[in-house]
Amino acid sequence: MTAPKSPKTITAAVIVIGNEVLSGRTKDTNSGWIAEHLTAHGVRLMETRVIPDVAEIIIATVNELRAKFDHIFTTGGIGPTHDDITAQCIADAFEVKLEQNAKAYDLLLTHYGKDELSDARLRMAMIPVGASLIPNPVSAAPGFIMGNVHVMAGVPKIMQAMMDHVLKTLEGGDIILSNTISCDIPESKMAEALAYIQGQYDDVDIGSYPYLRNGKLGVSVVLRGTQAALVKSATLEVIAAVSDIGGSPEPLELQVGI
Amino acid sequence: MTAPKSPKTITAAVIVIGNEVLSGRTKDTNSGWIAEHLTAHGVRLMETRVIPDVAEIIIATVNELRAKFDHIFTTGGIGPTHDDITAQCIADAFEVKLEQNAKAYDLLLTHYGKDELSDARLRMAMIPVGASLIPNPVSAAPGFIMGNVHVMAGVPKIMQAMMDHVLKTLEGGDIILSNTISCDIPESKMAEALAYIQGQYDDVDIGSYPYLRNGKLGVSVVLRGTQAALVKSATLEVIAAVSDIGGSPEPLELQVGI
Repeated sequence: MTAPKSPKTITAAVIVIGNEVLSGRTKDTNSGWIAEHLTAHGVRLMETRVIPDVAEIIIATVNELRAKFDHIFTTGGIGPTHDDITAQCIADAFEVKLEQNAKAYDLLLTHYGKDELSDARLRMAMIPVGASLIPNPVSAAPGFIMGNVHVMAGVPKIMQAMMDHVLKTLEGGDIILSNTISCDIPESKMAEALAYIQGQYDDVDIGSYPYLRNGKLGVSVVLRGTQAALVKSATLEVIAAVSDIGGSPEPLELQVGI
Repeated sequence: MTAPKSPKTITAAVIVIGNEVLSGRTKDTNSGWIAEHLTAHGVRLMETRVIPDVAEIIIATVNELRAKFDHIFTTGGIGPTHDDITAQCIADAFEVKLEQNAKAYDLLLTHYGKDELSDARLRMAMIPVGASLIPNPVSAAPGFIMGNVHVMAGVPKIMQAMMDHVLKTLEGGDIILSNTISCDIPESKMAEALAYIQGQYDDVDIGSYPYLRNGKLGVSVVLRGTQAALVKSATLEVIAAVSDIGGSPEPLELQVGI
């Protein structure tokens, strides 16, 4: 995460749009799902923001983050009702018009049939000029890509199908490999050894995450980097340090992977 | 969420600090928990941001958001290891020194005993000058409040205990009441009626959230506002509209509550 931006470092941000997430009514699972899939694809998620359904805030946030990161992914607010304002906001952010997209119209017509294609449903064919569509195999109404902004639905199953499609064409960067060593000792006992090992490995990011299990504190040490040999070597040092301190590291076997 | 700021509108933002959330390894549940409890307390969560363990980003984010909202809540990065940099970043954001806090020292001494109070553990007694402590009934190392910034642990159980403590002394604003009407029709069929009802109630926020259940799309209509009579009246109109359209609204009974 602290890696300097290089040609192979591709960055991203997620924008979750929805009052229902900020009120606590809906627990967002989309950003975690996207995070996991971006990491597996070699794209570094640098920020996630949850913002309300307020046009000025959506426009400002999209414009701030699309200038800062390689790719932006938004979820929520592209349905047929009055509170679905994301498409209009993206058009405003890019200073283009929102128009009825012929392809999107056809997709909705095929899905609903002419009699059921109400004005409300036709709102979902309104796409910013210049955007390309992201197919929605679940309920037809498409997402879209405008510049580096990928606009997706908020319903998790639909978002996941859209994201699967997007990832197929998205250029990935260096894949980050990681190892996790969990052990039954408090992280404070590991602190000195971890700081020492971190000092030896500039290109491996060593994080330590305490957890509570059966009322006892333990720690997961996560080692991340793009170079397998370095991650492996640093992992061996952590395992040796855990054993020295008297903990039982699990897993003992190396599992370099996502 | 769109309510103008009035003396009774108290706003907040959550900052989740941690590379492990951005990589997708850890699924953040803290921000949703905090959202729910702030809403119940009459505080409006306006934004959640997930950011990496990078000092400049933490400092800039804290300074941006603490100027914008009444209260800031951070989670993560206050443990004993090299990657726990939140306390130093808060001190830097407020341009004060980080010092060994006498009360925090005593808490750690009582919890660990003199022999076990290592240098690593003593890092957790380093608190910005001028901050007040937030007790940690689980593992002693305290959180702290600096200005309007509440700095809490990342481990959910510890964060929740800290937040419970903070909420006892935090001034609440108008409580937002809400009703949810779920029904088995696609939201597009509700769109016109909802837009009409929303037009009648400036002070009720009507949101519509589609869901997939057993492969069929349905919709939850959520009505939120601070005035019970208005929320109830708008809810009755939504229930009538759902019935008119041929859906089965559930629950049929009003349940004004959080």
